[in-house]
Amino acid sequence: MNPVELIIKKKTGKELTQNELEYFINSYINNEIPEYQMSALLMSIYFKSMKIEEIQTLTKVYIESGKQITFPKSYKTVDKHSTGGVGDKISIMLAPIVAACGGKIPMISGRGLGHTGGTLDKLESIPGFRTDINDKEFKEIVEKVGFSIISQSEELVPADRRIYALRDVTGTVESLPLITASIMSKKIAEGAQNLVIDLKIGSGAFIKDIKTGKKLADLLIKTGEKFGQKVSVVFSNMNSPLGEYIGNALEIKETIEYLQGKELPDIDILTKTLATEMLLLSETASTKLEAMEMIEDAIETGKALKYFKDFITAQGGSEKVCDDVSLLPQARYTIPIISQRSGWINSIDSQQIGYALIEIDAGRKTLDSKLNYASGAFLPKKIGDKITINEEIGKVFCDDKNLGKMVADKIANCYLVSNKKVQKQNMILKILNKFSD
Amino acid sequence: MNPVELIIKKKTGKELTQNELEYFINSYINNEIPEYQMSALLMSIYFKSMKIEEIQTLTKVYIESGKQITFPKSYKTVDKHSTGGVGDKISIMLAPIVAACGGKIPMISGRGLGHTGGTLDKLESIPGFRTDINDKEFKEIVEKVGFSIISQSEELVPADRRIYALRDVTGTVESLPLITASIMSKKIAEGAQNLVIDLKIGSGAFIKDIKTGKKLADLLIKTGEKFGQKVSVVFSNMNSPLGEYIGNALEIKETIEYLQGKELPDIDILTKTLATEMLLLSETASTKLEAMEMIEDAIETGKALKYFKDFITAQGGSEKVCDDVSLLPQARYTIPIISQRSGWINSIDSQQIGYALIEIDAGRKTLDSKLNYASGAFLPKKIGDKITINEEIGKVFCDDKNLGKMVADKIANCYLVSNKKVQKQNMILKILNKFSD
Repeated sequence: MNPVELIIKKKTGKELTQNELEYFINSYINNEIPEYQMSALLMSIYFKSMKIEEIQTLTKVYIESGKQITFPKSYKTVDKHSTGGVGDKISIMLAPIVAACGGKIPMISGRGLGHTGGTLDKLESIPGFRTDINDKEFKEIVEKVGFSIISQSEELVPADRRIYALRDVTGTVESLPLITASIMSKKIAEGAQNLVIDLKIGSGAFIKDIKTGKKLADLLIKTGEKFGQKVSVVFSNMNSPLGEYIGNALEIKETIEYLQGKELPDIDILTKTLATEMLLLSETASTKLEAMEMIEDAIETGKALKYFKDFITAQGGSEKVCDDVSLLPQARYTIPIISQRSGWINSIDSQQIGYALIEIDAGRKTLDSKLNYASGAFLPKKIGDKITINEEIGKVFCDDKNLGKMVADKIANCYLVSNKKVQKQNMILKILNKFSD
Repeated sequence: MNPVELIIKKKTGKELTQNELEYFINSYINNEIPEYQMSALLMSIYFKSMKIEEIQTLTKVYIESGKQITFPKSYKTVDKHSTGGVGDKISIMLAPIVAACGGKIPMISGRGLGHTGGTLDKLESIPGFRTDINDKEFKEIVEKVGFSIISQSEELVPADRRIYALRDVTGTVESLPLITASIMSKKIAEGAQNLVIDLKIGSGAFIKDIKTGKKLADLLIKTGEKFGQKVSVVFSNMNSPLGEYIGNALEIKETIEYLQGKELPDIDILTKTLATEMLLLSETASTKLEAMEMIEDAIETGKALKYFKDFITAQGGSEKVCDDVSLLPQARYTIPIISQRSGWINSIDSQQIGYALIEIDAGRKTLDSKLNYASGAFLPKKIGDKITINEEIGKVFCDDKNLGKMVADKIANCYLVSNKKVQKQNMILKILNKFSD
């Protein structure tokens, strides 16, 4: 086979066969096809897309590039994947809640890059916590605690890891076929038998409109089906940061407080919606009502917090942080964020808030950047809230006063107001799975 | 500047500025931007094209990546570029004819790759002939003999050389903006003040239809104009090989015979059309009629052949080949090509003929392949000619009998016939320049 001919085939809109995709991807992984040819193929896929059968084949080739983790069928394992948002700590409260209800969650997660934080980074702000856990231990923790959250090992879907890194530097990230194969290969290889996807829609998200979201959802559901994985897609609003805190240790603090019963309306509705879908898909609950009762119970009785503690202990962390959040890394300074306008908030630029917080090392500029776990912000104001000029609308936590002030000013600028009352936005936009219309 | 942002800018159909193109191309040449990012940009240009201003800027950046050759304005230098065809030896007869009429032709030419032969390879079949001539000597030969044909030095348009090689292996050759910048940068950097382009149209050519040809012609003319170069585009038919011979030494023999007065209708009309355009553009002739008379005279009086001899001598070759073509490399065997059908020829697959002849080393498989200058074929039959089954319709010249027979069979298969009379095709389809409608 000739790589140039395959590039031209895709470039002219033709379908690649299983043999052709296997040849191209495997030769790339074995360094027999150079990066410039893979990059040309990726850009051709971006422009010419792929048929669903091709996407399923690509996903298969990705999966078979490495090893796979399996769980007994009886586990009815279920995982959640989020397409990424600012302040998105939902996995960390969701997993113990679903586990407390009887679900089994094998979760392989990622680190933050760009304006969104990574679940692994947040967890690693807990003193002693480890995410580089081998398959055997991973399976044991899932069995014993009900869930485990670890980093992707070198052996799991290496094709996706290599190609994802190349997409990041060649402008080929926003391709629905490539996004689908990337998400689904990891979630199938990790052994999840059921999968709920939190598909963020909005200005701060990857997917800007619900029409594109529906197209992606359809590809995800059909690809899961091909591999015997049930998939449900929740479309959620990503027009403002989730919860009140952004920053690694601060989001762990917020998770603990939520599991202790603190009221956080946006987090609450999203967590419970996703948890309900997870319990239904994995047949842990048989009706929506039953699922919701199980979830309420897991939180109110402290059972979910208990599962969270066991999880922290199982992965080498100090569970004491759950009883005393001041044991988490603390920033030296607290800088107020002062509103520069009066009116009702009608938009919050989450992406710019995310980028601003990178300046104080709450997020990464490059893959090698060192994080400051204590850095971050408290941002309780939501779209529809009324704010007044010179009012304190939040705080920045940091170890450098001057940088912190600059960041506070930048964040203040991310709030745009209207002089008319603004409608509060719905968090959940739609839920799609193969049983939906 | 960030290369990924520039790739995304082009990918989303936006225009790149001069600064951006300079940064991207120059960083690539200096190995600061990797090949996989250049490849992603090239594929984005293939899909999203470029505005004429962008193409002009790209051409400028290409030219400025190396040094430029200049000639006095009074020379009114004129060159010809062909988009490539099987048996295309036209440059070799055209240059001495135009020079004999008083034109100055600084011609930097290429080698063959794929199914088309290269002018340099053909010339190098003349014993002693050199094409690796430095700029100083090049200018001297143009001044003294009126024309010189040499190979592209390392210093001339290095950006195009690097990017052309990458396009070849990434499926990004067929992009009108990239084709335009590649042709025009070389033809401007070599010092041609006027340029005639032989744009081949047809099944065997790069450009399959006249609509795409017109688009390309428009880009070539406008880009030339930007740099003060007058461009005229001749659309010629490329549905059968040019002349009767294909093969390096065989095409030199054919050139000599044509300059001695042999009748070769397709070569004659194309050569004279291109020569007329060159004389008009360079203001060596003021009317078409005058140009045609000058050309006829140059051939009939033997003046053009004399110029060809002087050129061979100036570049180290043996001019005796012009008086005795048997001094050119001769193949050991002559294998007849036997027609497998009866009827009127209605199509000849020139591309497949070109590929078949690569088997006996008349052309190159890879850049490193060694040529056999003596190998080739005699193919006198044209579209519209009547042939009969078992008739000898041509010959293969080679040093390996068995390979030669295989090639003869392959070539015989490239002639398709009709049982009705087939119309002869026009060689010249259209001429376009800024003065045309």
